[in-house]
Parts: sequence; structure tokens; C-alpha cells
Amino acid sequence: MTYSELSGQIVQKQSYLCIGLDTDPRKLPPHLSTETDPVFTFNKAIIDATADLTVAYKPNIAFYEAQGPRGWESLQKTLEYIPKNCFTIADAKRGDIGNTSDLYARTFFDQTAAGLSFDSVTVAPYMGRDSVTPFLAYEGKWVILLALTSNSGSADFQRQQVGDQELFETVITTAQTWAGPDQLMFVVGATQAAELSRIRELAPDNFLLVPGVGAQGGSLEDVSRQGLTPNGGLLVNASRSILYASNGTDFAERARAEAKTLQTEMAIHLTLR
Amino acid sequence: MTYSELSGQIVQKQSYLCIGLDTDPRKLPPHLSTETDPVFTFNKAIIDATADLTVAYKPNIAFYEAQGPRGWESLQKTLEYIPKNCFTIADAKRGDIGNTSDLYARTFFDQTAAGLSFDSVTVAPYMGRDSVTPFLAYEGKWVILLALTSNSGSADFQRQQVGDQELFETVITTAQTWAGPDQLMFVVGATQAAELSRIRELAPDNFLLVPGVGAQGGSLEDVSRQGLTPNGGLLVNASRSILYASNGTDFAERARAEAKTLQTEMAIHLTLR
Repeated sequence: MTYSELSGQIVQKQSYLCIGLDTDPRKLPPHLSTETDPVFTFNKAIIDATADLTVAYKPNIAFYEAQGPRGWESLQKTLEYIPKNCFTIADAKRGDIGNTSDLYARTFFDQTAAGLSFDSVTVAPYMGRDSVTPFLAYEGKWVILLALTSNSGSADFQRQQVGDQELFETVITTAQTWAGPDQLMFVVGATQAAELSRIRELAPDNFLLVPGVGAQGGSLEDVSRQGLTPNGGLLVNASRSILYASNGTDFAERARAEAKTLQTEMAIHLTLR
Repeated sequence: MTYSELSGQIVQKQSYLCIGLDTDPRKLPPHLSTETDPVFTFNKAIIDATADLTVAYKPNIAFYEAQGPRGWESLQKTLEYIPKNCFTIADAKRGDIGNTSDLYARTFFDQTAAGLSFDSVTVAPYMGRDSVTPFLAYEGKWVILLALTSNSGSADFQRQQVGDQELFETVITTAQTWAGPDQLMFVVGATQAAELSRIRELAPDNFLLVPGVGAQGGSLEDVSRQGLTPNGGLLVNASRSILYASNGTDFAERARAEAKTLQTEMAIHLTLR
């Protein structure tokens, strides 16, 4: 999906919501336990209930990997099922030396390798340029690079002073010499809203993927006020607050209600921008 | 495997070799193509030919992931087949917020999750403490944290000046407040031998996992002279130079010869130490 297609989806749906498909088999509604593939059945129902309210879906790969080969099958079926007008993110936080990042890129981008063809992958920046560029070699595919994450550990290295800026700022400025805003987004935690305007200055046109609204306590209003651009420029992720809104047979309906609340607020922020 | 068991293996085998099972199905000897699981058949032959010469095996997970569910099955069978006196490393370079790193730790450490029980996982430090500690919660299991990697991109962030040291040094000193040398190793590329004595000062007792000897051009002599400690303290990895020593029916024999050459040199360095 291109930059302008993604911006177009945001206008059309009046939403910059991304739903994190962090589907934990241990947290599924009990009535799904007799299904052949409870994770896929759950994801399918969530997607059916929310696809008109969200512009992106982001399965966190850890949740599927932890199920072994069966989990990879649930992931393949889920990705296949996501409507083509939704942007897809493999939240994998990969990164390795060049020839190995090549393989990670094949895994998530090349349908003929592992049966997956995501629009984008989250990548960890620590190993530098040649760990990131193999992902950029796929035309029309995106890298979403970790910059300033939502967790407490972000203080340990990301916020260390490097010259006259912090490490996450160095990451943002350096990575922009590797790719333009049509292939490069940054992860910025919603719990870091105070830094968002600074990040917007460093990366005026890049989309920011913002997790941490909802269960992690970030504010949608703060994030929107500082992060939105004329082209949208934001994907705000919510996972647990939507997926596990109910543990009963009404889980999909309740997930939709949660997504609808976020989308309604987003429509207002899009108008105010 | 404990610190003293690993040190004991090094003395017994007169080797600190780690063999990287970076098995690329596209590079296998052609005569294996008719096998049901060519990757496992190949790994099995390599393990049979080298288990007395090496103290560790390190499958790089990217190579298995890129095959989808089938790759995970090859990985499970390979891990199962490695003799119990060899240390096992999931070279996965994972790292995510706490509750997600929990799942990655389950994936690689808890046999009941994804059918895998490695001794250790490589972890990327960018997200800080709470992305690393979930792996440390498994007693007897190890984190091998990226510090200074062998690729050219290591210059981009790892070598940035943070106060009076470089970022990789901050990673090494900070991480030592999270775990002792009985659970924490560092990745230091063999191409960075000039920094090894500095790293040894910062981490006198930690094992260092050193990739980059062989195909990537690092020198075993330099690494050994600066990295060996009375307890061993080094795992030097070689992958391509061993796995693909021959593309014929003699591949295992030739792999053994390559491993034997490295082990013979290691025995000398162990004596000189």
C-alpha cells in the first residue's frame, strides 16, 4: 500500500486506528476452545467486526511464534483474511546483519517464502543501516523503525544523550538518509507524548506508529494534537482494550464498540487538524 | 547449562567453537533435495560430524522462519537432536515490551509452548531493561545481548559517543546491573577485535559470543588473545565456512575438517592462555 493510498484510507474511514492482533490463546473467550483454530476464529471475528473502523492491523509475531508451527498457520490465515484496503504490519522487531535481514524480509514480504506478504515490518535499529536496508529493497513495502518506545526501558538507551540530541533522535535523523517517508515510519510510544512535537519536527512527513493508547495509559488527544499532519501521518494502535473488551460470546460486538469509540474521537481530531 | 558446566566443556573438548546452523535450503548439496526434510537431514549430518569438536550450536532463526511452519518443524527436530552436552543458542535477536518479551522467552525456553527449549537467546538491547528481564526469569537460561556487532552498520548507533563512552559500552555496563555472568553474555563481532580488550575490562567474567570469524574476515588469533579468560569466556562462531565447505556428498566430512582446523587452533590458544 502506498503513502497516498494510506492517507486516502484515513480520510475515507475517518480513522487512523491500528488494531493490534496480539491474540493470546490463554485469554480467548472460553466458548472458542472447541474450534479447530481458536486464534484464527477469534481474529476473523475481530476483523469482521472492525474492518470498517480501522486502517491497519498489526499482529505481534511473538503471540503466534509462541504456538510453534500451529501459530504460524494461524498467522498465515489471519493475514490472508484481512481486507486488502487495510494496511498490514508484522510487529516483529527484527534486525540482523545484512544477509540475515534479507531472510527476515523474505519471511514477511515474499508470499512464496513463508506464505506471508505484509505491507510492513517493525525493525529494531541497533545494528544500523545494513540491518534495515534489505527490508527497503522490496518496492511498495515499508520499514517501521523503533525510535522511542512506550515501555519504561526506553529510558535505558533510547534517551541517552548523543551529542546534542538523544539516541532516538539520532535514529530518526540517520534513518531518513536510508529511505523517504513513502517507505519509512517510526514507532513512538503514546506514553512519550511530551516528545512528539520534537519528533514531528525531525520527521515532518513520516507516518508514526503509536502504540500505548489504552491499556498502557497514553492519551489519544495528546498524541493526535501533536502527531497529526495534513496527510494523516499517524497510526494509533490499540490491542488489549479492543481484543479483550469482553470474554463472552459478545466479544466481537464489544470489540467493535471499543474501536468505534476510538474512531469517533479520531474523526473529531481529523476535523480539528 | 550452567557457567561452570560450559567452562568444563571447553576444557574437555579443548574448544570454544560454536557452529552457526544458518541452514539455507537454497545452498544445500543437491543430493539432499529428495529428502523429506532436507534442512534437518543436513543439520543432523553436520551435528554428527562435529559434536565432539564444538561446545555450542547456534541456529539463526531467520533461516527457519523464512520456510514458514515447515521451517519451525526443522528447527524443533534439529534442537532435539543436538547432544545435551552442547550449549544451544537461539540466534533470534528478539526484544519487545515486557509482556511481549515474556512470550518470546516462552517460545525459546519453554518446551510446552513452541516445542523448543534452548539454553540461550540473543536479544537486542534497544528497548532496555524490561525487554530483557523476562528472558532472565528462566532459571538456568541465558540472555546473549547484542553489544558490538560484526556488520558495517555497527558504526551507525553502537559506536556513537554517549558521555565518556560509546553506546555499546553503556549497553555492557548497564546490562550487568540486570544479571550476572552466569546468565548474561554479550555479542561482540570478531571484526571488532581492536575493541575486545576494552570490552574485556568492562565485562571481565562474562562469556562473549563472537561471530565473524571465517566468511566475515575476523581473526581467531586476535579474538582469542584478547578475549580468553581462565574460565574460557569465549564462544567463537563459524557458520558458512563450515556448513558449505563442500556442496557434494562429502559435505559433512569437509565440515568436520573445517571445524577440526578451528578446534586445533583453539586448543593451542587455550594452552597459551
